[in-house]
Amino acid sequence: TIEFWYEFASTYSYLSATRVEDLAAAADIDISWRPFLLGPIFQSQGWTTSPFNIYPAKGRYMVRDIKRIAALRSRTFRMPDTFPANGLLAARIALVGETEGWIAAFTKAVFVAQFESGADIADVTTLTEILKSLNREPLAILENANSTAIKAKLREQSTEARSIDIFGAPSFRKPDGELFWGDDRLEQALDWTRRT
Amino acid sequence: TIEFWYEFASTYSYLSATRVEDLAAAADIDISWRPFLLGPIFQSQGWTTSPFNIYPAKGRYMVRDIKRIAALRSRTFRMPDTFPANGLLAARIALVGETEGWIAAFTKAVFVAQFESGADIADVTTLTEILKSLNREPLAILENANSTAIKAKLREQSTEARSIDIFGAPSFRKPDGELFWGDDRLEQALDWTRRT
Repeated sequence: TIEFWYEFASTYSYLSATRVEDLAAAADIDISWRPFLLGPIFQSQGWTTSPFNIYPAKGRYMVRDIKRIAALRSRTFRMPDTFPANGLLAARIALVGETEGWIAAFTKAVFVAQFESGADIADVTTLTEILKSLNREPLAILENANSTAIKAKLREQSTEARSIDIFGAPSFRKPDGELFWGDDRLEQALDWTRRT
Repeated sequence: TIEFWYEFASTYSYLSATRVEDLAAAADIDISWRPFLLGPIFQSQGWTTSPFNIYPAKGRYMVRDIKRIAALRSRTFRMPDTFPANGLLAARIALVGETEGWIAAFTKAVFVAQFESGADIADVTTLTEILKSLNREPLAILENANSTAIKAKLREQSTEARSIDIFGAPSFRKPDGELFWGDDRLEQALDWTRRT
């Protein structure tokens, strides 16, 4: 198994979410989908927004870098109007999907809606439409997503991320502790997991 | 031609300096070696040292990441006692080497001495030994490295780096402006340069 740690607002997490299943399947490795919130980790570093906003040259480069990589994978990336989006509700819904078995499909749909169609994933309407497209019942799921249990679970998962030294997204982790950061380390993380 | 922008204190620049010649030769692309100082760019972002020192989790990860990658390339990476090193004199000497035709050999030797043998590249003795090992005359070179002309050239090159949106090292750039950041983008930068 490999742990796939992602934040819904993260552009590089989008790159991984749209290909991790195929690559992991080819390597015969299971994926543990781990949505978490990067905001509190950034805040602990003194950042109140994404580093791509704080450092403009880095932000301009990121957009160009991801467009080039997406094009090589026959995908079309675009920045949403609001960046970074608030991924809190999406992450809570994903955790409902974890127990119900649709977290992978939901995660991919949210990333594609945000970074290919420009949808606002902080908007409950966007998430409701995605759940409907997956033949899920939005009302019950949203109620569950806002439950104390799910809220606590997301907090715990975000705290765990920081405790295992995660500082960015996506991150990949072998359960024994070996950590890999960035979409460009996905192949290496899978190789490592298979060989060790 | 591809421009290879590097800072002598940069760990990821070490990864590229030790392989860029082979990869560029295989792609039939010439390398323009561009040492520059990252310090002023970091300072303009409010950083007084390397981000790997400012953000400890990121720093721990970087060491592990580079050790893994170096091992895959049959190299043994180690952190020098002082990080980041002051690469000012090494960069000035490299610019002397640019006009005299030994910048590539000198650059590689400095990175290997620092990140494989743990040498202090801010120490003139280290640089003198490296020049001797390349059959160069240290005295005349050091005098030239400290000349007004070379000092100005390094300042200009560092200013140019910032003006073309470079924010980290290594960076690779096609002279038409296409920019790639990081050792993990070297192959992509060469592909891009060859195809366009």
